[in-house]
Amino acid sequence: MTQIVPVILCGGSGTRLWPRSYASKPKPFLPLLGEQTIFEATLARCAPFEAPVIVTGGAHLTHVEAQLGGGAASILVEPMARNTAAAVALAALRLPEDAVMLVCPSDHHIGDPAALAKAARTAAVFASEGWLVSFGIEATAPETGYGYLKRGEALGEAGFRTLQFVEKPDAERARAFLADGGYAWNGGIFAFRVATFLRELEAHCPGVFGPVRDAVAGGRRDGARFHPDAEAFCKAESISVDCAVMERTAHAAMVPVSMSWSDIGSWESLHAVRDKDALGNSVRGSAELVDCRNVLVESDGPRVSVIGLEGVVVVVDGDEVLVTTMAGAQKVGKLDGAANQ
Amino acid sequence: MTQIVPVILCGGSGTRLWPRSYASKPKPFLPLLGEQTIFEATLARCAPFEAPVIVTGGAHLTHVEAQLGGGAASILVEPMARNTAAAVALAALRLPEDAVMLVCPSDHHIGDPAALAKAARTAAVFASEGWLVSFGIEATAPETGYGYLKRGEALGEAGFRTLQFVEKPDAERARAFLADGGYAWNGGIFAFRVATFLRELEAHCPGVFGPVRDAVAGGRRDGARFHPDAEAFCKAESISVDCAVMERTAHAAMVPVSMSWSDIGSWESLHAVRDKDALGNSVRGSAELVDCRNVLVESDGPRVSVIGLEGVVVVVDGDEVLVTTMAGAQKVGKLDGAANQ
Repeated sequence: MTQIVPVILCGGSGTRLWPRSYASKPKPFLPLLGEQTIFEATLARCAPFEAPVIVTGGAHLTHVEAQLGGGAASILVEPMARNTAAAVALAALRLPEDAVMLVCPSDHHIGDPAALAKAARTAAVFASEGWLVSFGIEATAPETGYGYLKRGEALGEAGFRTLQFVEKPDAERARAFLADGGYAWNGGIFAFRVATFLRELEAHCPGVFGPVRDAVAGGRRDGARFHPDAEAFCKAESISVDCAVMERTAHAAMVPVSMSWSDIGSWESLHAVRDKDALGNSVRGSAELVDCRNVLVESDGPRVSVIGLEGVVVVVDGDEVLVTTMAGAQKVGKLDGAANQ
Repeated sequence: MTQIVPVILCGGSGTRLWPRSYASKPKPFLPLLGEQTIFEATLARCAPFEAPVIVTGGAHLTHVEAQLGGGAASILVEPMARNTAAAVALAALRLPEDAVMLVCPSDHHIGDPAALAKAARTAAVFASEGWLVSFGIEATAPETGYGYLKRGEALGEAGFRTLQFVEKPDAERARAFLADGGYAWNGGIFAFRVATFLRELEAHCPGVFGPVRDAVAGGRRDGARFHPDAEAFCKAESISVDCAVMERTAHAAMVPVSMSWSDIGSWESLHAVRDKDALGNSVRGSAELVDCRNVLVESDGPRVSVIGLEGVVVVVDGDEVLVTTMAGAQKVGKLDGAANQ
């Protein structure tokens, strides 16, 4: 049976959940849903497979190792951020050629991990046959914050060719995609056979392949950590897996999956996946809500009293207080506070 | 010329501006508008008259004396709160019979102090002639939070008989009052000749007059402070000046005045009298507002970031954060937080 090796990407330093999350307090390592952090939940749903490979930067290393809690994993420490193509290449170059990588972001929520595991096994079969597989997440709303995959011809019963990768659409196109039914969300989850991925990367994106190959060749091991050579790695082109490989290969496939997925890309989307009371309110920390609906309160200490509001987010974190409409939550990353942290 | 002695009532412990103001941090002693506290502003607009008499409780004494800053004043220390009739009676019994008391709450805002001073001189003339004078504040909105005075026959050019005292009306009646034009707000500001007030109080409300007379007779002086006898004072009926005297006397008059008055009875009314930017936003403390209109932010430390809201109040004070619509601000006093402080 094919080895499925989770490759968990722990990069980035989003500010979209500021002030709770920012560069030095990144989203994956916060318990935003339930008791586990997002990273711990990612590890848990990868547990049915081989020990994972974690690709992360030096800034997140302490968090990663603390939250691994001694669990088996190898850690690839990126000397600097070079986007996802280089991160996946790094993992591929450290794995057996016939292993299947299950590439997972570390900062997403998946409500139905069993559905992911099932789809991963299906995807691994396609990957073993030479396909580069995206997970086509069932679109359940006209989201403008996600990229989309357009379904092509069926490949047996459980997969399809990917006809097109579509960037984040405007609202009108997003509604058309949803109505069409032939589009799925692109959640940045992939299954690749190592050898296939490296071959396609070398062919379509030598600007990533060469430098990362050199960085791995010149790298050094340190216990569970592997440090690629910084001088070589920094020469890698900064490009996403989608752009570097998926949009260029002739072997792009997709496996549909419905698994209550969210990228938790804003306070609004966090609110959507949080447990809520009958009025749609979700509270963490000390709070009193009067005449409120669809209000999210998150406080790390002070009591928050809210009266008469609907569709509003209130976050208290240290010396920062954020109050925004759900729609306004898209602008959080542009605030002075978020930009300067 | 008639002696006009301001009698400033510093009682109460409102929670309507919670969490900024509550029992041990009362509204009059906070700089809610401009640099001065509300009490300091009250003192300043009484400066054209005699040295004031301050009627206050032991709990507020420290604030009163600190903010008097050595200015001449006599301080009457109520052993316990017994509403405004007893407070005014206390002052009356310590003043010369022919002085005119200008009774002023200490927690209101008056945008045009010169208009108050002018109306006070007019009111003092009526008071000297034996009238019990209310200040009839020009109604500029259909307020349901204020009592109203119904104008009766003219008394010369500058005053009227008061035909009726109207309790806080519902919205429909408030609109009718405004349309009618014959109604003014009752701001709890009065001018009384001492002898007249005491005669009418004794006649219409002996349950206040007798105990307060005894309390003053048995009281003791301590520098600028006078302490009425507690045992006697506590027997005084707890009733407002309006109910005890104004609604019962045959000599109620009113002097109209337009002076940008507000009782600052809620965050909404504080916002109404605050300086605002072109979008109607008013900020105190560190804040960043994006796509906001008519937002009031007040923070004693943390930075407050607000996105996309209209007509909302955000107050950060120590371990309390309040977020409310302007309309919801009426319910602030009923919050658990406000009720327990």
